Amino acid sequence: MAIKFSIEKELKGALGRAGTLETPHGVIHTPAFVAVGTKASVKALTPEQVKSLGAEVVLANTYHLYLEPGAKRVKSFGGLHKFMNWHGPLMTDSGGFQVFSLGTAYGRQVSKVARAQGNALDEDFFDVAPSLVKISENGVSFRSHLDGSLHYITPEKSIEIQHDLGADMIFAFDECTSPAEVFRYQEEALKRTHHWAKRSLDYHHSLIRANGGISGQALFGIIQGGREESLRKKSAKFIGNLDFDGFGIGGSFAKKDMETAVKWVNEILPKEKPRHLLGIGEPEDLFMGVENGVDLFDCVAPTRNGRGGTLYTSKGKINIKNAEFREDTGPIDFECVCSVCLSYSRAYLCHLYRAHEMLGGTLGSMHNLYFIINLVKRMRDSILDNTFPEFKKDFLKEYLSK
Amino acid sequence: MAIKFSIEKELKGALGRAGTLETPHGVIHTPAFVAVGTKASVKALTPEQVKSLGAEVVLANTYHLYLEPGAKRVKSFGGLHKFMNWHGPLMTDSGGFQVFSLGTAYGRQVSKVARAQGNALDEDFFDVAPSLVKISENGVSFRSHLDGSLHYITPEKSIEIQHDLGADMIFAFDECTSPAEVFRYQEEALKRTHHWAKRSLDYHHSLIRANGGISGQALFGIIQGGREESLRKKSAKFIGNLDFDGFGIGGSFAKKDMETAVKWVNEILPKEKPRHLLGIGEPEDLFMGVENGVDLFDCVAPTRNGRGGTLYTSKGKINIKNAEFREDTGPIDFECVCSVCLSYSRAYLCHLYRAHEMLGGTLGSMHNLYFIINLVKRMRDSILDNTFPEFKKDFLKEYLSK
Repeated sequence: MAIKFSIEKELKGALGRAGTLETPHGVIHTPAFVAVGTKASVKALTPEQVKSLGAEVVLANTYHLYLEPGAKRVKSFGGLHKFMNWHGPLMTDSGGFQVFSLGTAYGRQVSKVARAQGNALDEDFFDVAPSLVKISENGVSFRSHLDGSLHYITPEKSIEIQHDLGADMIFAFDECTSPAEVFRYQEEALKRTHHWAKRSLDYHHSLIRANGGISGQALFGIIQGGREESLRKKSAKFIGNLDFDGFGIGGSFAKKDMETAVKWVNEILPKEKPRHLLGIGEPEDLFMGVENGVDLFDCVAPTRNGRGGTLYTSKGKINIKNAEFREDTGPIDFECVCSVCLSYSRAYLCHLYRAHEMLGGTLGSMHNLYFIINLVKRMRDSILDNTFPEFKKDFLKEYLSK
Repeated sequence: MAIKFSIEKELKGALGRAGTLETPHGVIHTPAFVAVGTKASVKALTPEQVKSLGAEVVLANTYHLYLEPGAKRVKSFGGLHKFMNWHGPLMTDSGGFQVFSLGTAYGRQVSKVARAQGNALDEDFFDVAPSLVKISENGVSFRSHLDGSLHYITPEKSIEIQHDLGADMIFAFDECTSPAEVFRYQEEALKRTHHWAKRSLDYHHSLIRANGGISGQALFGIIQGGREESLRKKSAKFIGNLDFDGFGIGGSFAKKDMETAVKWVNEILPKEKPRHLLGIGEPEDLFMGVENGVDLFDCVAPTRNGRGGTLYTSKGKINIKNAEFREDTGPIDFECVCSVCLSYSRAYLCHLYRAHEMLGGTLGSMHNLYFIINLVKRMRDSILDNTFPEFKKDFLKEYLSK
């Protein structure tokens, strides 16, 4: 086994739990927030800064790295850890989400969280021309958004790429559907995702056998099924019964559907394996996920918001570029003890963003990432000392007060 | 005296020297390269990173900070050190160079080093519309390049702003001329610069007196005179005889004129005070300056080049974005021991720049700034151990070999 997951404590009357996830590159204390490093870089931050913020694990994107600089090239350099100088635990996704964001979802105002709810979070979502993707039973053909070249990804290809990249935890190839799709399409897509999960697992095992049975990589299967109870439960049963090391909960959600979907799935998944809610990271969603048995989260929101000047505080998000902050000598958040809040004023940050200084995006990303990582750590601590319900109530009351 | 300059060793048969410059915020070992933080930020770097590269002093721009966020505002926050979280020695320039870059020089292909020589280095040079500036004997009126608002800067105003900002070393207000100007204009401009120098000094002293005689700020006078021997010598004599704490050598140079101008000036300036060659920072120019008695240099080149992907190596500059580096697993420079060269490959950096990741500009700036700061440090060491001529010869032979 490439990883070892242990549950330390469970939440009374709910699915939540605190634990540890041992990987070949170090231990993750769960629940944990995973910093996103799409193209082998957590945007605007050095790995030293990422580590200093308390991040224990980084997720990079298979689709992006496959196109540029190429998985074989990364392999020839000694793998992704060495390439990007991140020597802690590392994950790669399967590329499946890009099938969605480049294909079915394009131009439909939906992403990880439907844009109708005002919460679109995927920063690479609107980068590309429509209809670059064609899905068949065997795999997905698509044109590169970089140079228009034609590519074909199958479950086997996704696993091969992820073996070349060499992250500690990798994901089975899946199809992510839009909540706007009809039941019939959700059902078809789920069937494909399940076939692809088996093929991903089989190929992963065959590569390990070819390597003499040795592997430092854990494979997570992905549960889909959209907003449909029957499909989510079916998927959790099917994927949960396969020999995966952990699970990802995928999908594009309408915000109101997220909690039920997570609950349906986690009530069925085998409790002794870790669960990752893919692409979700707003505070209220993190509380919901943790309470309902999610161990890992990743999301581009902290760094994307950070670059744009939207900063998290204990009283909700602020846009630091607003004129009101030009004279504000206080820190971003009085309750925060990150290195940015200890050393810089809102006025200075406001100045940096207004002056288009790159340091604004760096400091904003540092604060936001710390804020979110630390928030999930505090949830973990509150599970351990039996105060999760109070912590959730108190935090959200203040956070959502405006 | 706000600063104390001591010469430790002189170069035999030349004007160069190694020394220490004590300021209220720490000691600078001279000769030294000053990192440029135009708008209260060394572009793309945190102050912690700047310090870790070995930078002992930072220079910010009066003109830019006066416009945004405003000097009174910075003062109300406790001064520039606190505002930008740089607690080491800090300089501000006088705003005089912007008179040049926004006025007479605009559209004429000249900057710190004439563009005809392919070395234009001022990154804010082409930001603005022409004819924003009008120079009179009393001062300079100009329109803000940010919002078109009208401003008027006199020597007194420049000193007042620099007192509000609160850097350890500040500069007298001057007029920088283009090498393309005729002698008659150079002579007129120099006369103005000399009048302004006296007025700057008088106002500086009056502000100190008003403060009970206490000051943590040293004032440097600026020598101008273009490429004209008679004017440079006249300026060195005039400015050198005034009660300044140190001197700046200003001007826009044709590269071939730089050495003679620096020599003319430093043969005359009082030896016991520090000298700063303003806005110059290419390796060959740094050797020339150090040999000819310059103690301080500043230049945007390391960070500007770093953001653009032009990186310094011991064998000359490279453009890291070039395709040849996509497969190159070596460091930027095998002879460099900076944190970037120790941890990242050329291939990874090439990837970051091609993928438009901000981290590319950050790591490139870190390497370049380390390279230049460390180069001047090595010049200092070679003065101390009597090996400067050999070091200069060996370094430049390799650096200029391509």
